[in-house]
Amino acid sequence: MGVTVKIDFKNMLVNDRVKPYLFKARYGIEKESKRVDLSGDLAKTDHPKSISERDDHPYIQRDFSELQMEIITPVTETLEELFHYLAAIHDVAYRSMGKNEMLWPLSMPPGLPENEENIVIAKLKSVEDVQYREYLSHSYGRRIQMLCGVHFNFEFGDEFIQALFNAQSDMKEYRDFKTEIYLKATRNYLHYRWLFTYFYGASPSSEKNFFKEESLHGAVRSIRGSKYGYTNSDDVQVSYSSIQNYLSDLSSMVQKGLLSKEKEFYSPVRLRGGKHVSELADHGIKYIELRNIDLNPFEPYGISYEQAEFLHLFLLYLLWKDEGENCDEWVKMGSSYNDVVALEHPLEHTKFEKDAENIIDEMEQLVKILDLPISETLFVHLREMLMDPSKTLAGRLYKESEKSSQVQVATSIAKENYQKSWDKPYQLAGFTDMELSTQILMFDAIQKGIQVEVLDRHDQFLKLKLNDHVEYVKNGNMTSKDNYVSTLIMENKTVTKKILHQHGFRVPKGEEFQTIEHALRSYHLFSSKPIVVKPKTTNYGLGISIFKEGATYEDYHHAITLAFKEDNSILIEEFIKGTEYRFFVLHDQVLAVLLRVPANVIGDGKHTIEELVIHKNRDSLRGSDHRTPLERIQLGELENLMLKGQGYQFDSIPKKDEIIYLRENSNISTGGDSIDVTDQIPDDYKEIAVDAVGALGAEICGIDLIIEDTNVPATNKNAYGIIEANFNPSMYMHIYPYQGESRRLTMHIIHYLFPELLQTQST
Amino acid sequence: MGVTVKIDFKNMLVNDRVKPYLFKARYGIEKESKRVDLSGDLAKTDHPKSISERDDHPYIQRDFSELQMEIITPVTETLEELFHYLAAIHDVAYRSMGKNEMLWPLSMPPGLPENEENIVIAKLKSVEDVQYREYLSHSYGRRIQMLCGVHFNFEFGDEFIQALFNAQSDMKEYRDFKTEIYLKATRNYLHYRWLFTYFYGASPSSEKNFFKEESLHGAVRSIRGSKYGYTNSDDVQVSYSSIQNYLSDLSSMVQKGLLSKEKEFYSPVRLRGGKHVSELADHGIKYIELRNIDLNPFEPYGISYEQAEFLHLFLLYLLWKDEGENCDEWVKMGSSYNDVVALEHPLEHTKFEKDAENIIDEMEQLVKILDLPISETLFVHLREMLMDPSKTLAGRLYKESEKSSQVQVATSIAKENYQKSWDKPYQLAGFTDMELSTQILMFDAIQKGIQVEVLDRHDQFLKLKLNDHVEYVKNGNMTSKDNYVSTLIMENKTVTKKILHQHGFRVPKGEEFQTIEHALRSYHLFSSKPIVVKPKTTNYGLGISIFKEGATYEDYHHAITLAFKEDNSILIEEFIKGTEYRFFVLHDQVLAVLLRVPANVIGDGKHTIEELVIHKNRDSLRGSDHRTPLERIQLGELENLMLKGQGYQFDSIPKKDEIIYLRENSNISTGGDSIDVTDQIPDDYKEIAVDAVGALGAEICGIDLIIEDTNVPATNKNAYGIIEANFNPSMYMHIYPYQGESRRLTMHIIHYLFPELLQTQST
Repeated sequence: MGVTVKIDFKNMLVNDRVKPYLFKARYGIEKESKRVDLSGDLAKTDHPKSISERDDHPYIQRDFSELQMEIITPVTETLEELFHYLAAIHDVAYRSMGKNEMLWPLSMPPGLPENEENIVIAKLKSVEDVQYREYLSHSYGRRIQMLCGVHFNFEFGDEFIQALFNAQSDMKEYRDFKTEIYLKATRNYLHYRWLFTYFYGASPSSEKNFFKEESLHGAVRSIRGSKYGYTNSDDVQVSYSSIQNYLSDLSSMVQKGLLSKEKEFYSPVRLRGGKHVSELADHGIKYIELRNIDLNPFEPYGISYEQAEFLHLFLLYLLWKDEGENCDEWVKMGSSYNDVVALEHPLEHTKFEKDAENIIDEMEQLVKILDLPISETLFVHLREMLMDPSKTLAGRLYKESEKSSQVQVATSIAKENYQKSWDKPYQLAGFTDMELSTQILMFDAIQKGIQVEVLDRHDQFLKLKLNDHVEYVKNGNMTSKDNYVSTLIMENKTVTKKILHQHGFRVPKGEEFQTIEHALRSYHLFSSKPIVVKPKTTNYGLGISIFKEGATYEDYHHAITLAFKEDNSILIEEFIKGTEYRFFVLHDQVLAVLLRVPANVIGDGKHTIEELVIHKNRDSLRGSDHRTPLERIQLGELENLMLKGQGYQFDSIPKKDEIIYLRENSNISTGGDSIDVTDQIPDDYKEIAVDAVGALGAEICGIDLIIEDTNVPATNKNAYGIIEANFNPSMYMHIYPYQGESRRLTMHIIHYLFPELLQTQST
Repeated sequence: MGVTVKIDFKNMLVNDRVKPYLFKARYGIEKESKRVDLSGDLAKTDHPKSISERDDHPYIQRDFSELQMEIITPVTETLEELFHYLAAIHDVAYRSMGKNEMLWPLSMPPGLPENEENIVIAKLKSVEDVQYREYLSHSYGRRIQMLCGVHFNFEFGDEFIQALFNAQSDMKEYRDFKTEIYLKATRNYLHYRWLFTYFYGASPSSEKNFFKEESLHGAVRSIRGSKYGYTNSDDVQVSYSSIQNYLSDLSSMVQKGLLSKEKEFYSPVRLRGGKHVSELADHGIKYIELRNIDLNPFEPYGISYEQAEFLHLFLLYLLWKDEGENCDEWVKMGSSYNDVVALEHPLEHTKFEKDAENIIDEMEQLVKILDLPISETLFVHLREMLMDPSKTLAGRLYKESEKSSQVQVATSIAKENYQKSWDKPYQLAGFTDMELSTQILMFDAIQKGIQVEVLDRHDQFLKLKLNDHVEYVKNGNMTSKDNYVSTLIMENKTVTKKILHQHGFRVPKGEEFQTIEHALRSYHLFSSKPIVVKPKTTNYGLGISIFKEGATYEDYHHAITLAFKEDNSILIEEFIKGTEYRFFVLHDQVLAVLLRVPANVIGDGKHTIEELVIHKNRDSLRGSDHRTPLERIQLGELENLMLKGQGYQFDSIPKKDEIIYLRENSNISTGGDSIDVTDQIPDDYKEIAVDAVGALGAEICGIDLIIEDTNVPATNKNAYGIIEANFNPSMYMHIYPYQGESRRLTMHIIHYLFPELLQTQST
């Protein structure tokens, strides 16, 4: 016992066939934190109702206590992706908690209740899980359970391990070889983890009632990482020499009653074979879970990208680095080194400074030899922290707390994070480059505990999964529920009109033309009527001309030429008078009706039009490039022309309450306002919308009706006209309208795709 | 009786609000002809089995006799469309009859059997319909029933009638006004129809056994149009003065036993209110059916576009033209005039030449006044025929027959028409500008009696209808059966691969890149492996580079640059060795497997490569622009380079049986050969294809597998790789392969869309 298989990783790592895969890995993070109120006191509320309350929620769970929120990322193949999910799930957590709560940024809890019985155990559905928590209360007390941290799950890439395996001949079994890799990295991690504690330990001081009696005097680097943290009794000793020894030691601890079950073993590194310890025996080690990570108070999500990068590199280094002969001794030494460092004063130089320097030099050398893609700043920063302890996390937190108090510092950090999440509530952090409706849909999916995988970020392609049920979604509402040809129908305005007409709906009469000549020859058909000339397939109002009083031949000619610039086919249609409404239809129901008003400002008798525009544009709902619910009003040539037509310029000062329109068209994309009128539109028009969508065979559709007077029954002749139908209608404009009620269409889509959600929870 | 409502159409027609709609109308044609064998003798076979044998087939039915084929166009809004359908249905009829039969181009039958009982009555399913034909045999004899002709259904455009209605105030009821329009046009048509008989009468002589006794001596203009044609007894007289009189006369004829039922009334113009005479009373006249049209022997479809245009103009003229005071007398006069003209010798000037000249002058004037869009050649041709009777249809047929015999002339014309339909059996006449697979699908739909409406010709958008069941189809196989997101998955190669990989299928490993720089930085991942560099979304092999032995950095750089020219994202993938097969999957079944071979010629030791290419290109299956099943092999720069690589030039003479490849890629679009191997591919690979398509959620899919050796079980590691999946796979290449069995995929699509077809017929 205690003597391990010797594998020459040093040589294998520099093998050319191994090198391309060195930085392939899979990552996952679990991060606990406590919910507090806006003053920084522990929250007294239950886990937010808006989050699906399944015990097995994939992203947001409760830990020991009802107020301990655990954020769990999916497994990712890059650190970038890992941090995107971490950010996104935090956004969901924040906004699900509501505006009266925030997350405590420290591992150490704020002041605890005098009577620890007042720390509420998580109200889980599983009786077994609740009983286990009660057992923990008895064994360790509830106070210590309030410590929070980050668990970093790490798996070497399969291609990497495969390449290493192929580069050796000592071991024949791939599974065993893989296990040896993790065992070596683990032993060395346990030996050298004091280095991580020095840099990133971040629990220098405790608050009221954390310790029953004040056992620790003065600040340290990491209470949580020291023997004062959450550890098993000293009798619990487990060997990492082989997986067999590890497992038999564990089971003997349980037999002896030192542990209630295997999972009660709180090592800074947990070996993982799958969900349960037993899988280790069958499948070997699949990945390891690093548990000695304090919450980084200065990062909104509790851990920095640099820390994660350091950990990956550190593990590669530890695989490369020779270990001590007696491996159990080696691990034990690590614990005592770590305790020393953890209990050093945060501003004190560490006792192991020389060793730390050596390790950093070796790591940097390794980066060079192996040509690893590491951030250039990492080593600069590590050396900086080594030379100046006040730059370490514990050092920084301690120094800042000196000015006021640790609680005040933490509360103010918590507020900043809270503010950041609420600033642009329509965004999903980590995915803000994606289409807005997709971001909101992802938010809702995460909240409801549906697994979200981004299959193609540029293409807005998602895989949603609830248990065994998979749905693919593109652009927020292109789904398996719509049939293909129905979307092709909507893509083709002529076909859409023909079909609607054949089903008895009123559509603008008109003709399609493929050549300018042919269109000109048909002038007599349209000469004296109100008409619209438009390209057949383009969007956003380009190339469209409207003649409400009919067009002269010259106007007609000009309009045709403009439209043909946008498409090979154009449509000339009768112009239908009235107001255009967008009906959002989902499976036989109108969920929202929106009125779009052209870009405008309202005068106050004091400010110029330009000033009014600038002021209106300040609204955080307005931005550009469809990444905000509304677009900024432009002050361009078209706006100028439009003003001129009304006798204004940008520097004119409109009268109080005068409405000045800056655009003819009402598209949101050109600064228009969105106004929800769902409750104002009579049912008979909603029925028309639903029936028309049905005629097109669509399930999810945005259909545009022009209505002259909504008080007139829809059955009246020419009461309405249908302009077009959209198979991928914008949702965000209904969710964040400029005015009127918000309609959470993305949540409807989620429930439509996963009707079983309603059966498993009370919403 | 006999005095009609007087409406001043003369003034109304020139009204500016009427003029735009003058040429709006709806048309339909029914055209009978007899099936004959290749010698021109009446066919002895049954109605073709390949045509759905429903009595109510919308396009192809039987008339009186089993060998009388009736071709029925749908109602169209332009004459162009009318003739497209007429051509298409003829193509279907021809190819459904098989290669041993053709259609007789004359109204008069070829030699009839001595015993008329040998003329077989149509074997319809409806007992009533068969009984009616037996009644007709008794009343008129079977010989006369063998006359064939064209019925031209004509309806004035609703906008036209509406505009006329609005331009008057005499009549209050729109329905009655419309009826008056048709009544006037009908009366004048009956009066002046001799003019049509002069120009387009085309039944000058009869053949053996048509007349029981030779009652007619010498040739005439139109036997069918004269009293020797198919007419009621002289006692049958019906007034056209009003719809009430017309109907009461008809019913009194039936009461008197002069007619068995109303539909036995054989007027040259039939008033139509709907399917049954009774609808006339309720709804007034909806359209009229002109029945006095002999088959035009010189037109492959029995009537020329000019004739149809003449008829429309003629009807407008007749509406404009004053009529006689006593309308019954006026109609009667028309019959006697027509009999005179019909029985004139084909080469004789007509007795009414002066009147004809006047009418033509007036018609031409009307065209000018009303600004009608009439072919410039029409009046030239009419005057030519008037001045020279040998230019009329009867004149031409008579003169040609003088050289040999009418039977010989007709047989040779029939053969030409037959040849034309069989020359390019993959085309559908009338729609040859459409995509090839769509043409074939339309063919199959028409054959099976499914109504086909082209919703958008440029967009290959069809509406298919069988009873109340409607299906929309774009590009031949984009249908309601596929769900939308599944097609979006296939459109995105990265997403396709991810999903297939997640389902356990082997796909080429690879990465996606958005920038040249990023791709270059990853060279080390691919440096020593066989790889493919390709754009993410484009097609037809553009921008693809293959490195079977791995790429140097320079090659890699060049390939990346090429790929980025085609798309913003590129894929770099491992190259999978083997042969690429296209599996066409429809709803859990592989219907066809195709091997595509790069453009090639086989040497004969005599001809140059260029000559061999020219010869191979002569195949009627080869053409250009995807309007033929195969494309012509090019002799361009790429082919030249490819030959050079093998030490050849265009004028090299390859050895006998040597295969010379002119292209690296195997796309059909660059002259490749298609080889059906459906029966040669083992079932386990077909299962892989079906399961992979299932994983993508697709119903109709062309999926490309690379297989190194089809004899190796598909379950073997790396036995296959899936390259891509196509949601709109080409069908024509399976239907008309260069080599191997034809797979009629379009018919499978039809049956998939309309499973009820199998229940209503035996296929």
